[in-house]
Amino acid sequence: MEKNRLEAFSDGVLAIIITIMILELKQPVGDSIGDLFKLAPTILAYILSFAFIAIYWVNHHSIFHDAETVNVKILWCNIAWLFTMSFIPFATAWVGTYPKSWVPLSLYFADMSLACITFHLMYYLIFKETHPDKKFRLGISNYISLATYFLAAWLGGLCPIAAFIIVAVVSCWWIFPQKRQNS
Amino acid sequence: MEKNRLEAFSDGVLAIIITIMILELKQPVGDSIGDLFKLAPTILAYILSFAFIAIYWVNHHSIFHDAETVNVKILWCNIAWLFTMSFIPFATAWVGTYPKSWVPLSLYFADMSLACITFHLMYYLIFKETHPDKKFRLGISNYISLATYFLAAWLGGLCPIAAFIIVAVVSCWWIFPQKRQNS
Amino acid sequence: MEKNRLEAFSDGVLAIIITIMILELKQPVGDSIGDLFKLAPTILAYILSFAFIAIYWVNHHSIFHDAETVNVKILWCNIAWLFTMSFIPFATAWVGTYPKSWVPLSLYFADMSLACITFHLMYYLIFKETHPDKKFRLGISNYISLATYFLAAWLGGLCPIAAFIIVAVVSCWWIFPQKRQNS
Amino acid sequence: MEKNRLEAFSDGVLAIIITIMILELKQPVGDSIGDLFKLAPTILAYILSFAFIAIYWVNHHSIFHDAETVNVKILWCNIAWLFTMSFIPFATAWVGTYPKSWVPLSLYFADMSLACITFHLMYYLIFKETHPDKKFRLGISNYISLATYFLAAWLGGLCPIAAFIIVAVVSCWWIFPQKRQNS
Repeated sequence: MEKNRLEAFSDGVLAIIITIMILELKQPVGDSIGDLFKLAPTILAYILSFAFIAIYWVNHHSIFHDAETVNVKILWCNIAWLFTMSFIPFATAWVGTYPKSWVPLSLYFADMSLACITFHLMYYLIFKETHPDKKFRLGISNYISLATYFLAAWLGGLCPIAAFIIVAVVSCWWIFPQKRQNS
Repeated sequence: MEKNRLEAFSDGVLAIIITIMILELKQPVGDSIGDLFKLAPTILAYILSFAFIAIYWVNHHSIFHDAETVNVKILWCNIAWLFTMSFIPFATAWVGTYPKSWVPLSLYFADMSLACITFHLMYYLIFKETHPDKKFRLGISNYISLATYFLAAWLGGLCPIAAFIIVAVVSCWWIFPQKRQNS
Repeated sequence: MEKNRLEAFSDGVLAIIITIMILELKQPVGDSIGDLFKLAPTILAYILSFAFIAIYWVNHHSIFHDAETVNVKILWCNIAWLFTMSFIPFATAWVGTYPKSWVPLSLYFADMSLACITFHLMYYLIFKETHPDKKFRLGISNYISLATYFLAAWLGGLCPIAAFIIVAVVSCWWIFPQKRQNS
Repeated sequence: MEKNRLEAFSDGVLAIIITIMILELKQPVGDSIGDLFKLAPTILAYILSFAFIAIYWVNHHSIFHDAETVNVKILWCNIAWLFTMSFIPFATAWVGTYPKSWVPLSLYFADMSLACITFHLMYYLIFKETHPDKKFRLGISNYISLATYFLAAWLGGLCPIAAFIIVAVVSCWWIFPQKRQNS
């Protein structure tokens, strides 16, 4: 399997996910500024999910940059990761409708956790393929990210606003692809 | 016709099919875990169809790997196959709504049969184009797959759960692209 | 402008058009074979439009095959053509709902006429760019196609079935990209 | 980051945006020509937005043509620009429903302003990356465009028709990618 076709397929799926979310944004029921503001939670959830997917797209490129070839394990790990990403519009829409409810929030952050776990697994598999003789080490930022999404899924319902802010701050670390500790 | 543009177009169509299925997943009507579980049949049908399309994508790449050029027969066989794939979201949504009804299940598995038949036809055409002097032979796994989808379309309504499990197990064989018997 | 990016963008738009049409296919209201058959006009309109777009995709590739560079005129003609193609799902859905009504049929075939005209204009512009010193001639099949779509738009309402059959037969000529008279 | 993958991702997102807008076009409620004309404002808004996105696509290609590499600033500026573009279907649908209301019009033109600002910022960043020693200058047409979108967002509600015509005329300047004053 060549890297290019996998990248192109992943880009295609991400491009569609990032744009179909806007279809969940129903137009306001009236023509006043108040009608627009009633959609605020949905719009906010959309913006967060857009940023989340964009950050992953940048980092996806980053971890595949050094890869020469793609083995079957990486291929299916990538598909599993795309699957978790494809649930984001569904979870985003549900959170947008019930922005303060425990279950939608848990599903939203649990999906982010799974995306984060499969992404790190993919990172590990690519590293092993590219540098078979080096030792794979994650940085502290990787552990914090994994823990944050995991905790947000379990405790997010306690204080939704806090959960969103903490996840947003932690996600910001990934805007600039991490310098990898191993290379 | 160059192979690259056909692959890119097929990837584009598959990427869209795999992601628009999520649009069929309406958000739950409430915010409790029970409301989420009510969607279980739809979510399960979605997961199966996602895996089904992903497996085809991997195998599509596999059979086109050796192809040098693409003739008009292969081109139109590929379009016919994409057509059967494009019906999967429609059949998936119908099965998700009536998970135990005979007709939706038959349509779902009949569409999978057609996808399997056109795919094998495409495999045959590519093989003849690439190795004009070799004899084309299918493995036992190919015959079992064709028979399974066909039987599921006719008998799936007898016991939907069994049909799903058998089809899922048979599909698993295709997760790792078959070593081709002929090459 | 390089040819590759224009081809990739066109392929992307066509891939989306061809797959979002399936979203217009609402699932049947019941779970019987009769409920499925009630959707027959919509499904038929979908199949015709799918074939129509696939045929154009093949021919689009064919006319761009010889092109070396793409000037601004070709670029905008291509965008105008994509615009007419993007109306096909809209017209298809309307025809599917009112399969025997005059206005939806006229809109459907008028859109096909416009697609055909812009496509031939693009063919002319590419020919002039690639062979500036040769004379551009259309074959008899080109004139018949243009006339058929045009007549179908004006007279299709008289006998919808006949219009569909004639258009389908004429479109079949384009399944195999025409040998160009000029080259 | 290589330029190609960023271009392909942007093209993918634009191709989806330009085609999903048609999904907002609900089919007419009847089968007469009058039912079609009732959709006129929505269809007009669709055509304008289609042209708007197509013009940006052409200019996007134009400003990336000279770029050799893409740094992180350009990458995120591109994502921010794609975000503003992804709001166009939402704003288009709202304007189509309330074509004479102040707030939808302001949102529509404000989104266009933001798209224009992020696009010019991207143009600046690419210029600085490609020609680090040259001075960046915008032409008069750039300033007029920025001012037009900005004024339309603030004053468009006074006379919607005038706002649409002025914006359309100013946008026409961009059909042919500007000769850049600096190169």
